[in-house]
Amino acid sequence: MTLMPSNKALVPFVSVANMMKLIHQIGISECLVQLTEAVETDFRRWPEFDKTPRVASHSRNGVIELMPTSDGVQYAFKYVNGHPINTRAGLQTVSAFGLLSDVATGYPLMLSEMTLLTALRTAATSAVATRALMPHGARTHAMIGNGAQSEFQALAQSAVNGLDIVRLYDIDATAMQRCARNLRAAGLKVLEWPSPQDAVLGSEIITTCTADKQYATILTDNMVGAGVHVNAIGGDCPGKTELHRDILMRSDIFVEYPEQTRIEGEIQQLDADHPVTELWQVLRGEVPGRRDERQITLFDGVGFATEDFSALRWLYGALREHDCYEMLDIIADPDEPRDLYGMLMRAGVQSDRQQAANLPSSTEQ
Amino acid sequence: MTLMPSNKALVPFVSVANMMKLIHQIGISECLVQLTEAVETDFRRWPEFDKTPRVASHSRNGVIELMPTSDGVQYAFKYVNGHPINTRAGLQTVSAFGLLSDVATGYPLMLSEMTLLTALRTAATSAVATRALMPHGARTHAMIGNGAQSEFQALAQSAVNGLDIVRLYDIDATAMQRCARNLRAAGLKVLEWPSPQDAVLGSEIITTCTADKQYATILTDNMVGAGVHVNAIGGDCPGKTELHRDILMRSDIFVEYPEQTRIEGEIQQLDADHPVTELWQVLRGEVPGRRDERQITLFDGVGFATEDFSALRWLYGALREHDCYEMLDIIADPDEPRDLYGMLMRAGVQSDRQQAANLPSSTEQ
Repeated sequence: MTLMPSNKALVPFVSVANMMKLIHQIGISECLVQLTEAVETDFRRWPEFDKTPRVASHSRNGVIELMPTSDGVQYAFKYVNGHPINTRAGLQTVSAFGLLSDVATGYPLMLSEMTLLTALRTAATSAVATRALMPHGARTHAMIGNGAQSEFQALAQSAVNGLDIVRLYDIDATAMQRCARNLRAAGLKVLEWPSPQDAVLGSEIITTCTADKQYATILTDNMVGAGVHVNAIGGDCPGKTELHRDILMRSDIFVEYPEQTRIEGEIQQLDADHPVTELWQVLRGEVPGRRDERQITLFDGVGFATEDFSALRWLYGALREHDCYEMLDIIADPDEPRDLYGMLMRAGVQSDRQQAANLPSSTEQ
Repeated sequence: MTLMPSNKALVPFVSVANMMKLIHQIGISECLVQLTEAVETDFRRWPEFDKTPRVASHSRNGVIELMPTSDGVQYAFKYVNGHPINTRAGLQTVSAFGLLSDVATGYPLMLSEMTLLTALRTAATSAVATRALMPHGARTHAMIGNGAQSEFQALAQSAVNGLDIVRLYDIDATAMQRCARNLRAAGLKVLEWPSPQDAVLGSEIITTCTADKQYATILTDNMVGAGVHVNAIGGDCPGKTELHRDILMRSDIFVEYPEQTRIEGEIQQLDADHPVTELWQVLRGEVPGRRDERQITLFDGVGFATEDFSALRWLYGALREHDCYEMLDIIADPDEPRDLYGMLMRAGVQSDRQQAANLPSSTEQ
């Protein structure tokens, strides 16, 4: 007998160090391509998912959210915070972890860091929406807001949609320079601009990805020309938007889950019955996406639980070929399931015996 | 430079083995006494909590739930499943883990197993309700249902409320014998009975704690005499109750959080406006608890998020004096918070360098 937990009790855990190792083993562009397929595949089977708006706990500094979903076979949830003020203290604005579990038993299958994985899946989701909606032959991608998510967004658009030319703008020149350096090192053609107007000029795809928790106007109406596709990623909680209302009124708006987006997305500025199209319907071919060359398509992305589900399932599959996890003793597993108390008591006896065995003069009974 | 995560990125984690070690270091009765105080203290400041019914995902075999709450300073949630069918496969009916985090930053403070901790806090909550509502001078406690929670319930009632005589009944004689053996070893006076009628006869406190997911009738009206206090613990999800409706009609009913209990508790059998009293109001002295010697008081306990919050806070405090945790690398922590991508890339370079350094013929550049 041993104090070591049994296999049933152990849950694979992907630490931040192991997540980084996994991404390097697979390659970040390949990760983004695979995640884009994983996210799109699950969007195409949207009706199979048990969906609910995320459960948010708001406070003065930010928000803590739980994002659960299930396809009836597996269940996933993510814990994620959003605290724009955190960067002042040298902390992440967004940090996250999540769990995949088995619906039949309720037992966890895998626990994982999700700060990095969220950055990857958010970029993959933008790539899914852009692939479905962008104008034909697009090459140029303007990125307004060059924070922690920006390189992932640009790399996904390059790897999945061939958007090799990136035009950057950030109010913080240091952030823009860092993003430019990182993306050039990854082989993209990068241009830095002194204003958002300059950055979006001639861009076929525009991604806004800023972090301030306020009604901001990162893009005004005159900046967005006919025929472009916009990914509005940064507006993702009540009181936090990035686009002028007039842009929304000129656009065809595509969303993940209207019940959540109307609370959190750009469309919180619009009437509750303003028409929007659900992205999954476009991906299944049930409704048209882009209809003509002059149409402005807008993906009002706030991040939805199914995307985390897709990312965790992808990760769980990847662990079969990559030894990038450790085993965590997080599930109590008594020999006899109703004897939880007995397991606890026997552990004490074993502990005492082990201590006794370590005493020089003792002999085991 | 090192690949090791920084302190900011590491979160204390209490494994099952460490939870058992902690309980043995403190002593299980002392743990239950301390948890009873922790749970009652937080019930007394009920209005400070951000409350929501738990978020449940139901399936054929069971339910997976998330239970979040916050007092504005700290935030906690628990992941818990309830799968009565699991025991057939040698798995726990209920397994759980949870998190305590800091509202100001959204960063996790501690991750912990909660299968054992839930058993402790559920018992502590019964002890809180019983202390407030039981008849004067009670000594005898009938326990109907002798599964994984039963020993914890009996020990808490003994340690907190002096209920030293325990009368047991379970439909499964093996479970009853196991519970009896465990409780005798803990110093309680234990009697085993062939029927629930026999077990409750002459008992001043009755606890029902069975696990079947169905409308059951563990207690019928004629079995419950005047003046007793009943803890109905096992009825805790839609379609799962333990008491005959007539008992409810004769009782004064006390609940944790009516919005949740009306969905999950015994009172799902009653009209939506049937009067109930919130336990916290009794504990604060705002409304009377037991008013006379013939009254039947019924605590319709379903388990609420504040109890998990109390338990996690208690545990977090206990870790200051007990070295019963390990550090988990679950939060990405770049040197520059907006440079998540740079952190990822540098990890790859370090990894390559480490590999290179391990090659016999290489020299570090």
